Amino acid sequence: MSKKRIHNYYDNVSERRVRVIPLGGLEQIGMNITVFEYGNSLIAVDCGLAFPDDDMPGVDLVVPDVTYLHENKDRFRAFFITHGHEDHIGALPYILKDLNVPVYGTRLTMAIISGKLEEHGMLESVTCRTVSFGDVVNEGDFSVEYIRVNHSIPDSAMLAIGSPAGQILMTGDFKVDYSPVLGEPIDLQRIGELGKKGVLAVLSDSTNATRPGSTPTERSLREILDSHFSIYKGRRILIATFASNVGRVQQIIDSAVRVGRKVIIEGRSMVTVTNLARELGYLDIPDSALLSVDEMGNYPEEDTVILMTGSQGEGMAALSRVASGRHSKIHITENDVVIFSSTPIPGNEKAVSKVINDITIMGATVINRATHVSGHACEEDLKLIYTLARPKYVIPVHGEFRQRHAAAEIARTLGYDEDRVFLMNSGDILSLSENDAYYDGAVQHGGIMVDGLGVGDVGNIVIRDRQTLSSEGILIVAMTIDRNSGEVLAGPDIVSRGFVYVREAEALIGEATEVVRGTVEEAIEAAGVDWTRIKSDVREALGAFLWKKIKRSPLILPIIMEVEI
Amino acid sequence: MSKKRIHNYYDNVSERRVRVIPLGGLEQIGMNITVFEYGNSLIAVDCGLAFPDDDMPGVDLVVPDVTYLHENKDRFRAFFITHGHEDHIGALPYILKDLNVPVYGTRLTMAIISGKLEEHGMLESVTCRTVSFGDVVNEGDFSVEYIRVNHSIPDSAMLAIGSPAGQILMTGDFKVDYSPVLGEPIDLQRIGELGKKGVLAVLSDSTNATRPGSTPTERSLREILDSHFSIYKGRRILIATFASNVGRVQQIIDSAVRVGRKVIIEGRSMVTVTNLARELGYLDIPDSALLSVDEMGNYPEEDTVILMTGSQGEGMAALSRVASGRHSKIHITENDVVIFSSTPIPGNEKAVSKVINDITIMGATVINRATHVSGHACEEDLKLIYTLARPKYVIPVHGEFRQRHAAAEIARTLGYDEDRVFLMNSGDILSLSENDAYYDGAVQHGGIMVDGLGVGDVGNIVIRDRQTLSSEGILIVAMTIDRNSGEVLAGPDIVSRGFVYVREAEALIGEATEVVRGTVEEAIEAAGVDWTRIKSDVREALGAFLWKKIKRSPLILPIIMEVEI
Repeated sequence: MSKKRIHNYYDNVSERRVRVIPLGGLEQIGMNITVFEYGNSLIAVDCGLAFPDDDMPGVDLVVPDVTYLHENKDRFRAFFITHGHEDHIGALPYILKDLNVPVYGTRLTMAIISGKLEEHGMLESVTCRTVSFGDVVNEGDFSVEYIRVNHSIPDSAMLAIGSPAGQILMTGDFKVDYSPVLGEPIDLQRIGELGKKGVLAVLSDSTNATRPGSTPTERSLREILDSHFSIYKGRRILIATFASNVGRVQQIIDSAVRVGRKVIIEGRSMVTVTNLARELGYLDIPDSALLSVDEMGNYPEEDTVILMTGSQGEGMAALSRVASGRHSKIHITENDVVIFSSTPIPGNEKAVSKVINDITIMGATVINRATHVSGHACEEDLKLIYTLARPKYVIPVHGEFRQRHAAAEIARTLGYDEDRVFLMNSGDILSLSENDAYYDGAVQHGGIMVDGLGVGDVGNIVIRDRQTLSSEGILIVAMTIDRNSGEVLAGPDIVSRGFVYVREAEALIGEATEVVRGTVEEAIEAAGVDWTRIKSDVREALGAFLWKKIKRSPLILPIIMEVEI
Repeated sequence: MSKKRIHNYYDNVSERRVRVIPLGGLEQIGMNITVFEYGNSLIAVDCGLAFPDDDMPGVDLVVPDVTYLHENKDRFRAFFITHGHEDHIGALPYILKDLNVPVYGTRLTMAIISGKLEEHGMLESVTCRTVSFGDVVNEGDFSVEYIRVNHSIPDSAMLAIGSPAGQILMTGDFKVDYSPVLGEPIDLQRIGELGKKGVLAVLSDSTNATRPGSTPTERSLREILDSHFSIYKGRRILIATFASNVGRVQQIIDSAVRVGRKVIIEGRSMVTVTNLARELGYLDIPDSALLSVDEMGNYPEEDTVILMTGSQGEGMAALSRVASGRHSKIHITENDVVIFSSTPIPGNEKAVSKVINDITIMGATVINRATHVSGHACEEDLKLIYTLARPKYVIPVHGEFRQRHAAAEIARTLGYDEDRVFLMNSGDILSLSENDAYYDGAVQHGGIMVDGLGVGDVGNIVIRDRQTLSSEGILIVAMTIDRNSGEVLAGPDIVSRGFVYVREAEALIGEATEVVRGTVEEAIEAAGVDWTRIKSDVREALGAFLWKKIKRSPLILPIIMEVEI
């Protein structure tokens, strides 16, 4: 390619195209990762994990399929991370193992990522680069600027992703908070400035797009927290919230300090994140305000507040262990007030209800209303960002389809026609230029299941087997056959697991054994010792018998052992 | 016992005690059944089923353990049913099989029960007795009066359960509706009259006790439905609601008729209940208002409304089949408006979200707000009933503990001391008299799991196995051993299901086989052919190996076959 041609190429604005490829996070919540591609450069924003759905039994977590990045390894420059939540950083240790590129993020974000990499023994091998708001990072054809936003974790960023094709704003998860508890308000001026110069596209958080109005400021909880402490004077208070919501933690501690209560911090991630946030200066707690769980007993309980994990009813979290009597040091009494400073994430409603019921049974007062504000932008906030940035294209991301659809509707009320709003699917390639935008094929994408130490060794067949095993159980039919004569030397024995109580079903298993014996004899008589045939005949005959008898379809596994006498 | 003594006994009011024994429905929602016991008479109110929790894989439904009724078969007189919802009638066919007593209920309730009994081929063998509001049924020492209440199904009743110990009001599920769409308002006069005479106890629906204010009338939806039909003129409308909410169905059809739309009724239970309700005169639909699904194509779709099941995202219901493209006759287009006239029952939130997402992806408009009112009493409604009945004791039932606790708090604001409010557990015996009330032991209770045709043959061991199978899978280790020499003639072969992809794990299974082989040889060398020892050694060695290698704990099932050569 001659220099001339390159020059022409860059001169002709309409030919300058950037490609946006979300590899995950759209059909399935979590697992956020979006690839941007210009010429010889690829970068990815975020690298999150998803928690398994109910139909993935035994799976610990799900990480994105990054085959496309592997295929373009030579052009892949870096990960740019918007903030430190699991659905934006959790897959990094799994993905970086085979794709070692630099990782950029703000200070708290990088501190959390470093902690993760250390757990995986990878801290030395990964290039971690901490950036400040206002910094611009150049990687290949891309320049990435970090812009401050507000969210439910400090140091959250919007990215202005510049390339010769134009500026793309990726909002990350955000809210508009004019009076945040920690740090500064979202940098609306910079967004306006970029908008004035011209923004090609905005990829925006849609989580709260179905909600009218504006998201309340974090600071609005101050009065509510103070009133809890005032109303429940004389009683011990336990408050559950997200460990990473450092602003919330600060407010709770501030309220406690104002009324002279000591704070006990409990739950693994609450302790870890709080320590980290104190070290880095995000959290301001006088040492005198804190008590350890072990010191707790020496202090009047009505003068304490226990700040803990478990606001989502997670089985192993501190509050859940307290609620089920599995916590060795914290026991609920009628003098306790338990406050949920949270709302249940969809799917966690029943688990949270269970914790509330258990605590209520123990006699404590439970407050699960009005002590939480969201970290995501509502309808009017999205209008503000779209109006400030005034992008050519609007691409709602981060949300269920109905939420992204609502964001698209919001854009339409601002005058965006259908051809300027894109509701993408994971894997889609959207090609953008100042002149036009169109879908340009798709790339491999999806979720890779992680179970224990295995990444990707549990697939659809295994999951389907697990589903059958879980709802119907398994019947194993074992027998030993003489290889030469075809005589059955031992068995058939039927062993079951997860099927029925054996003592309830002795007669049934007896009859089933006769069915198998007859089937095997017939099969051998008809075709000799043909394993495949015997197995499939047994499966069919036994399956039909069980369905007829008790309307169940367990997994049937014939095992035939051959011996030579 | 002399006649004199009996006379004295009845004369001495303080010795007249009635026992209240909820056999289910308190810890686990659904499965409502409450036993009342006086002298030689036992009666039961309701006989519901529960749907299985997430931790009961493969279980179809759960019915109450009625051992206590079996133990007192001779004294057990009858079932009195409050209304026709599954959580109040669903277990009848299972329980009546071995406990054949008369069943009493109002007209629609008995029609629904008869349909169920017919499905189970039991209609001939059960005595079904239809009662009207105001009727008093005498069974043994009990007189049971049916009193009209409002709820989300017609013909719902409160029961005034009279015995020599006094009157107990069992509210059943209810709301206070001064202007119901079907039938009359709740019979507050009669409750007041009974209260004036003296009520011993009220057992009250607590479902909405955490909600302040009063439950809005069903009729308040008229304007909302009319406005949907007005706003979405020119588009086809699909509305999902509960089939048994006949008042809702009537209002939707009335709104449709007012704007000249034809109504298509779709979904098995919607068709069944609607036909039944029309036959019995609860539902008033002109024939000309209806279209069959097959006629639908001949009619302009914007002049139709499809009334259907699936408001809870149930996999096999009509709307779910439409949303996933599995419905043969109804296909969603951008011209459709889908209205949820319902709210998700706790636990169904994610399933409902999935349906909404799928329909939104198909281009339709989804409305899932403000088109529903509850069928259960809120705080002020409970105060009304407690104040009218002014019972000696308040016993909140029908609700999670936190909801029953809220009802207890409401009673306390009305001046009820702790010793007059009882938060019972299933199985508790509460002994009541005019003078005092106390717990008097407990009876066997619990849930019996129904899976396919098996009732009670799936128990805790089977469920625990299914849980392990579902999250970890199973490894079967098969081998054939010479009984005399102890020589391994075939195997060990390792077969797995739900564990890992075999092709991914060939090396692992290979190593595991060697571990087993070594373990078996050692065991035989040490102790001869001792099956129990070999099996437990194999389980232990293989379990340790797999945990070390991949941090998983599948179920390990050694199968040893012996042959004699």
